Formats: sequence, structure tokens, C-alpha cells
Amino acid sequence: MSKDPNTVFIGRKPTMNYVLAVITIFGGGETKEVTLKARGMAISTAVDVAEITRRRFMQNLKVERVNLGTEDIPMQEGGTRAVSTIEILLVKSS
Amino acid sequence: MSKDPNTVFIGRKPTMNYVLAVITIFGGGETKEVTLKARGMAISTAVDVAEITRRRFMQNLKVERVNLGTEDIPMQEGGTRAVSTIEILLVKSS
Repeated sequence: MSKDPNTVFIGRKPTMNYVLAVITIFGGGETKEVTLKARGMAISTAVDVAEITRRRFMQNLKVERVNLGTEDIPMQEGGTRAVSTIEILLVKSS
Repeated sequence: MSKDPNTVFIGRKPTMNYVLAVITIFGGGETKEVTLKARGMAISTAVDVAEITRRRFMQNLKVERVNLGTEDIPMQEGGTRAVSTIEILLVKSS
């Protein structure tokens, strides 16, 4: 996954931590786009982050695109395990 | 949420139950589109269903559109609680 500064990786922290991260990035002024990335169970959290940010904090935010995918994660026991992924592109309209 | 026969509501059952439901609907022959709907923690399962169906069983299946949203669910204690939702439109190419 990319290390773009405008990408927020959603994991196991409280949802509002990620909402704050998104708001902070947009608060920088020049940024028009933020991508949320998550896999597995964190996918639900990523959708929460998009919806809470959009509804409660930034009404001018739009979900521009949602991509679904699959990653093969190596396992300790050997072999790989397929895990679903999501990318949510958020765009701020002026 | 609609009761369209081509809609599969994703809940707490095993993921493969829903994968089978999707394959069965498409197996009817005339059906070109199936919509997956889920909310809350089941959103991750919905993405798993889309990805597993597409990768393992129907290579001619495409994720045509993904819509995110929020529903206000009434609570037993009174009031409502906002829950995130997802709709995934799967389309079979010929």
C-alpha cells in the first residue's frame, strides 16, 4: 500500500482518531483529496470514518470513489490468506 | 431497505452462505445484477462476499458501483443510533 501523506490507514484504534486525522489533513488547506485504506474487519471502521467525517464535520466532503480488492497476506504458519481491502477516495468540494 | 429479489442482505451468517446465495441468483440465468446490502460490522462481510464470489466462482463478475450511507436505527432505550451502510452492485458481463 502507498505511503502517500494524503492516505489514512484504518486499523484498530478508536474511530474518532481516524476522523480527526482526516480533518487534520484537509485542514492543511491545499489538500483536496484523502484516501482511506483498510482491510479485513477494519473495512467497517473505514466506512464509519467516511460517513462520520462527511455528516458531522465536513458537509462539503464527497465520497468520490470506492475500490474493493483482495490482498494475499503471508501467515506465520506459512502460505497466504486472502483478505479483502477497501479504498475510499474522499474529495473536498470548494 | 428494498425487498428486490436480486438483493442479498448480509448479516451474521457464515460468509459462504451469502456467496452461495449470490451464485444461486445469478444461476437463474436471466439475472445480470445483484445488490449486496449490509450495515455496521457486516460491511466487512459484504466486501468479502463480493471478492470471494468474483475471484473464486464468477470471473465475469464486476463491482459496478459501491454506495456508502448512514441509517438512523431506533434504540430500545429510545432515541436513534447512526449506523453506516454499504450497497455493492455486482454485474455479470456476458
